[in-house]
Amino acid sequence: MQNRVIINEVGLRDGLQNHPKRLSVKEKQTLYLALRKAGVADFELTSFVSPKAVPAMADAAELVAAIPADPAVHITALVPNRRGYARAREAEMKGVAVVLSATETLNQKNIGMSLQTATDECIAVILAAKQDGIFCRAYIAAACACPYEGRTDQAVVLHLAQKMVDAGADEIALADTIGAGNPAQVERLFGAAVEQFGASRLAAHFHDTRAMGLALSWVALKSGVRKFDASIGGLGGCPFAPGASGNLATEDLALMLEQSGYETGLSLAGLVDAAALAREMLGGQVGGRVLPWYSSDRARKERERGAA
Amino acid sequence: MQNRVIINEVGLRDGLQNHPKRLSVKEKQTLYLALRKAGVADFELTSFVSPKAVPAMADAAELVAAIPADPAVHITALVPNRRGYARAREAEMKGVAVVLSATETLNQKNIGMSLQTATDECIAVILAAKQDGIFCRAYIAAACACPYEGRTDQAVVLHLAQKMVDAGADEIALADTIGAGNPAQVERLFGAAVEQFGASRLAAHFHDTRAMGLALSWVALKSGVRKFDASIGGLGGCPFAPGASGNLATEDLALMLEQSGYETGLSLAGLVDAAALAREMLGGQVGGRVLPWYSSDRARKERERGAA
Repeated sequence: MQNRVIINEVGLRDGLQNHPKRLSVKEKQTLYLALRKAGVADFELTSFVSPKAVPAMADAAELVAAIPADPAVHITALVPNRRGYARAREAEMKGVAVVLSATETLNQKNIGMSLQTATDECIAVILAAKQDGIFCRAYIAAACACPYEGRTDQAVVLHLAQKMVDAGADEIALADTIGAGNPAQVERLFGAAVEQFGASRLAAHFHDTRAMGLALSWVALKSGVRKFDASIGGLGGCPFAPGASGNLATEDLALMLEQSGYETGLSLAGLVDAAALAREMLGGQVGGRVLPWYSSDRARKERERGAA
Repeated sequence: MQNRVIINEVGLRDGLQNHPKRLSVKEKQTLYLALRKAGVADFELTSFVSPKAVPAMADAAELVAAIPADPAVHITALVPNRRGYARAREAEMKGVAVVLSATETLNQKNIGMSLQTATDECIAVILAAKQDGIFCRAYIAAACACPYEGRTDQAVVLHLAQKMVDAGADEIALADTIGAGNPAQVERLFGAAVEQFGASRLAAHFHDTRAMGLALSWVALKSGVRKFDASIGGLGGCPFAPGASGNLATEDLALMLEQSGYETGLSLAGLVDAAALAREMLGGQVGGRVLPWYSSDRARKERERGAA
């Protein structure tokens, strides 16, 4: 059990929400099925957010309806507020995720609410979800640093997380939203969070902006955490800045975990195929950092098989 | 003291030895000076190897002579055998490094010697260096995996390292030559090596081929190691496979260490300038993975300063 790690695929939500290219419901469904084929069983599929604010997620209900029922799969959708929650419930979602940014300014800029109002809104959604028997994750965003306020106070992160747990949140996802965390900070943060909440209630959401995504994941893993968000092909980075990847790539994380003796239940070949499919759909720079190695390694092995 | 980390710059040797573009002595000297300006004080500068085998290093003696004397700087050169050592000594090097691959096949393929002959050759060089009062590092190459024999037996690595220490080697550099190590393996290997040799005698040499370079460095750091090889701009990867970087980039490692509260004595801005210079000289894909982030972050700060 201790060696089993869950990778929660957030590419279809976090990876696509700001992407300049829009995918159809059919394309998203195809990408979902490729990920299922690779063994992915945990998805943050979409976001029931205002279609005006995030046009790429306007098809949330339609996408949920297009995904075949599968008892082996655990699907959540992000809900920014009670209105989003009502839509998710109507779409018969069995899991939702609320997002609370750890700083005053990020809440203001992101959702136009004060930190207090955002906290109250998250609590209202959690209470409703628990009442309805729906799984509820709570993100604490900007858990390492805020783009406006700099380094985040760990005590504030843990305090907000406690409020979410007190309201009934099933899971706390500590999110390094802008990829500004460093291993020493993450070691302290997750060490304290595991002590306060227990490892099984925690998930880690890292970005690879400053190349530290895998190092941060390793540190969180050592703290005891066994659930990690990742995005196929690193989707969610800026496609116009080669190398400036955003989300940690699912295939990079899976390779590190599998080679280190952890079980993810994922097929690396399948993930690479899914990343290639994403590249075909979206064009441009898609693919985490192990893809070039994997591709040349696979080609070499095929040549050797041909020669043998 | 415990927070002080030495980054040994190997770009001018490991980064250039197989590069398709050849740099002149003058260019190498200019790159060296840019690295000095960034605060780099430890260099593996060149290799006294057969000019036929490695034409890019044929200028070794000339390059050493072109580097200004500087008591603050610690420079080594790689010497593959006694002949190379004699040339290094003639060039008045104060430090050398021998390389012993941990597997039979890699020694055969790389230098046409059996593991036993290679071990004897390394011991002969170490003995001579100690006699001459010259600092001597011993690499154990393929310390994690061998391209021909697969995963390397940790006991063999430690046994070979012990032979080098017994002969008088001042430093053991455990090298993941093909970037195939994973954090769990490196944790075990460095844990055992620190126990056997003490952290202060060890250095870590990682590649970023499978995106794990920083995670491996963090693990080795936690084991107590405080000396790391890195290559400016990640030089040493295959320039024809974008993203398939080879050596861990100096700027990536320095950023992680500095942000985590360790002291490297290096200027990130200076390293980025040196990486840009390398790119100008070599063309194509040069630059570790933090460069795109750093460049856009610097541009944003400059815009803000302009607006203020």
